[in-house]
Amino acid sequence: MLPADLSAHLDRIFPPERFYTDPVDCYAYAYDNSRKIFPPDAVLFPLSADEIRQTILLCNQYRVPLIPRGRGTGTAGGCLPEFGGIALSLERMIHIMAIDPANRVIVVQPGVLNQSVQDAAKPHGFFWPPDPSSAAFSTVGGNIAASAGGPHAVKYGTTREHVLGLKAVTGVGDIITTGCYTTKGVVGYDLTRLLIGSEGTLAVITEATLKLTALPNAVTGITAHYRDLSSCAAAIVRIMTLPQLPSALEFLDAGSLNLIRGRYPDMLPADTHAMLMIEVDGSSLDIAEAVAAILAACQSSELIFAGEVDNIPALWKARKALSPLLREIAPKKINEDVVVPVDTLPQFLTGLTQLSHHYQLHNVNFGHAGNGNIHVNLLINPDNPDEVARAERCLDEVFNLVIKLRGTLSGEHGIGSEKRAFITKEIDASTLNLMRAIKQVFDPNNILNPGKLFPAPN
Amino acid sequence: MLPADLSAHLDRIFPPERFYTDPVDCYAYAYDNSRKIFPPDAVLFPLSADEIRQTILLCNQYRVPLIPRGRGTGTAGGCLPEFGGIALSLERMIHIMAIDPANRVIVVQPGVLNQSVQDAAKPHGFFWPPDPSSAAFSTVGGNIAASAGGPHAVKYGTTREHVLGLKAVTGVGDIITTGCYTTKGVVGYDLTRLLIGSEGTLAVITEATLKLTALPNAVTGITAHYRDLSSCAAAIVRIMTLPQLPSALEFLDAGSLNLIRGRYPDMLPADTHAMLMIEVDGSSLDIAEAVAAILAACQSSELIFAGEVDNIPALWKARKALSPLLREIAPKKINEDVVVPVDTLPQFLTGLTQLSHHYQLHNVNFGHAGNGNIHVNLLINPDNPDEVARAERCLDEVFNLVIKLRGTLSGEHGIGSEKRAFITKEIDASTLNLMRAIKQVFDPNNILNPGKLFPAPN
Repeated sequence: MLPADLSAHLDRIFPPERFYTDPVDCYAYAYDNSRKIFPPDAVLFPLSADEIRQTILLCNQYRVPLIPRGRGTGTAGGCLPEFGGIALSLERMIHIMAIDPANRVIVVQPGVLNQSVQDAAKPHGFFWPPDPSSAAFSTVGGNIAASAGGPHAVKYGTTREHVLGLKAVTGVGDIITTGCYTTKGVVGYDLTRLLIGSEGTLAVITEATLKLTALPNAVTGITAHYRDLSSCAAAIVRIMTLPQLPSALEFLDAGSLNLIRGRYPDMLPADTHAMLMIEVDGSSLDIAEAVAAILAACQSSELIFAGEVDNIPALWKARKALSPLLREIAPKKINEDVVVPVDTLPQFLTGLTQLSHHYQLHNVNFGHAGNGNIHVNLLINPDNPDEVARAERCLDEVFNLVIKLRGTLSGEHGIGSEKRAFITKEIDASTLNLMRAIKQVFDPNNILNPGKLFPAPN
Repeated sequence: MLPADLSAHLDRIFPPERFYTDPVDCYAYAYDNSRKIFPPDAVLFPLSADEIRQTILLCNQYRVPLIPRGRGTGTAGGCLPEFGGIALSLERMIHIMAIDPANRVIVVQPGVLNQSVQDAAKPHGFFWPPDPSSAAFSTVGGNIAASAGGPHAVKYGTTREHVLGLKAVTGVGDIITTGCYTTKGVVGYDLTRLLIGSEGTLAVITEATLKLTALPNAVTGITAHYRDLSSCAAAIVRIMTLPQLPSALEFLDAGSLNLIRGRYPDMLPADTHAMLMIEVDGSSLDIAEAVAAILAACQSSELIFAGEVDNIPALWKARKALSPLLREIAPKKINEDVVVPVDTLPQFLTGLTQLSHHYQLHNVNFGHAGNGNIHVNLLINPDNPDEVARAERCLDEVFNLVIKLRGTLSGEHGIGSEKRAFITKEIDASTLNLMRAIKQVFDPNNILNPGKLFPAPN
């Protein structure tokens, strides 16, 4: 329950249709794709930076947590109101403020959907490269909070590389403007990138200036089917040493392929036990050269076949179906998002197989192999305490292997609440203390998304 | 003079050949390419992060400024010991720690020259895109401190986009590790980008993990000669709306061309009053298509001719000669580095002409037009106080115009000491206060490069 005085203040700022307190209304803002449930005490739907500023000032006054959220598609629990408080839904700040093709820029409010950005940019010959699988439904603000990636990051980079500047309100209610409107700019500290990936713990983003990229002239899809995992992993390494970067290089293991077979029975050969889905884009002149080089790199005695596909949308549909399919068979799956250096992928994937055997766990691994970014899914039955305990031990060893190989615990999902127990495996105490001190500067009363990103104090 | 106790401590850490106190020896560390002179009281040449850490701890104890520097090629005074203290020259930390072509990574100490990175990467088919004109002599650490750019930023981005992670020692002597070894990673706040461009005010970089890019198969150069400025500026805008990004798009105004004529008498037609130097790279298959599109975009009734050039190195030699030639004729030139949105370049360049007429100043403008990044040079006689005063008023109006056009005061040179008086034109008080608070977190005693980047307190 919100303090009555705070409610009265908020009533003067927000009309009832933008201020929910009924628990039934609030419930839809209690969860994200981590499937944990923490109902907020209230939900606010601001329309302007000034409304956000006033809300933050009040939350400081009453020491009430404020949890910014886009559309709740994150998988790491980043927008869950763990300690109650107010969910600040940016979903109604949906104006495209400007589209400026001459400068390759689009300026948007945080609740604009990723797909809306693409729809606005496309007639001008542009796109915005970040493409999380939720793009049709998720918001630009959420992308920025998580520094989202997606399959095309292997060629185009992640959100961090495609934002020029931000407007935001800090945890003390200061309105700040970061970055610039141009592709170059070095005036002052890079607060833009500091906010990108900060998971709503430092400031609430109220406007973003995004850098657009020219649409490629043409796109071609390739699949490569392997009889075994290790031949497929070796091909990934060979492909990534080519000068031509594919625009996507997705890996699917045997478990992933079996899931797809369940939904699309005739899509895959029976003896495919590991597969690559590759996309090449660019000028039509280039693609033939790149395809030839990639097909040569795919060769192996365990290759069943590799070649261009006619129907690229069908390819991506099958790939994008994986996460929902996993949810169906394992609603409480443990879903990780680790990254290892590309040339260690064979070692990492072999290690994963050994660990799942050792701990008698069913796992399914797929992901953005061109970046070394593998989504490791442990399919557990949460009602089996022994299996849950084995999964926890297995996960710990997976993370240790990732760190040993010079990888990182999250490539695109973020830390949120799901991974904060593990962050100290990767980040040393001095560096983490510095991050805590930066949080303190932006949000001294710990109002914004408290508890996220950092490990709980001992 | 250093406190005697501090000197005694430093003597125990640094042998005499890595600890200068003789003013004659120190003098070479008193200046950079801003041509201001502030001799340090001592110069240290550390070889390790631990030596740097010990030095920072001592500087905190004795409250002595510590000014990190690479090779002193910056133009904004960023490495000048304005308040005395110790110049920390990283020029002897020159080890390439690892070159890892399979992961497109090179790990270097901060004193490694930009050219050395290119030389190490080239045999593997890679390069590191940042390319300041000083690349043969300047260091990677300096690049990172300034987030340096260069002509190829129009296609490849600046230093910020090409660093995966850093090791550094903060202003309190904490050793931190930022970022990761992989192309994706979202664990914790982005301290890597926070340090990039921070001009040595937050931490001393001790190691950098750089992301390499495949060398293009082929490169072609184009020049386009115009009878007047406005036709040339209009062509820039048209070229930058093409889907094909040139790998460089350099603009030279009439003053710049006259300087080149002085050095290379037969290089340029007499009636060329504005010129573009364009580079296109990529696969050889693509270049023909891009060249045709760019040449079409160059067309204008005031175009003298546009076409491919045979000798690309000669083209770049002439372009790179500009800054030294300017120094020869105007040792005290005011050298700015502003950026405006590309489609406002015609308005900006016209405005510059009007301002220089109004203030009766001779100016020379050239630069990285593809990013809207123009180096505005006011050629003043420092012994003429009236001219100096006119230049100051003119500069103020140039900056106002830049801000009005939604530009930024520095594209690649940084703030240092030269531009700090103007930073509040671009950055509002709230945002600047936040930057000051971040400085306070990293360096509470204001030991590291004090006074730089921020405007002097009133």
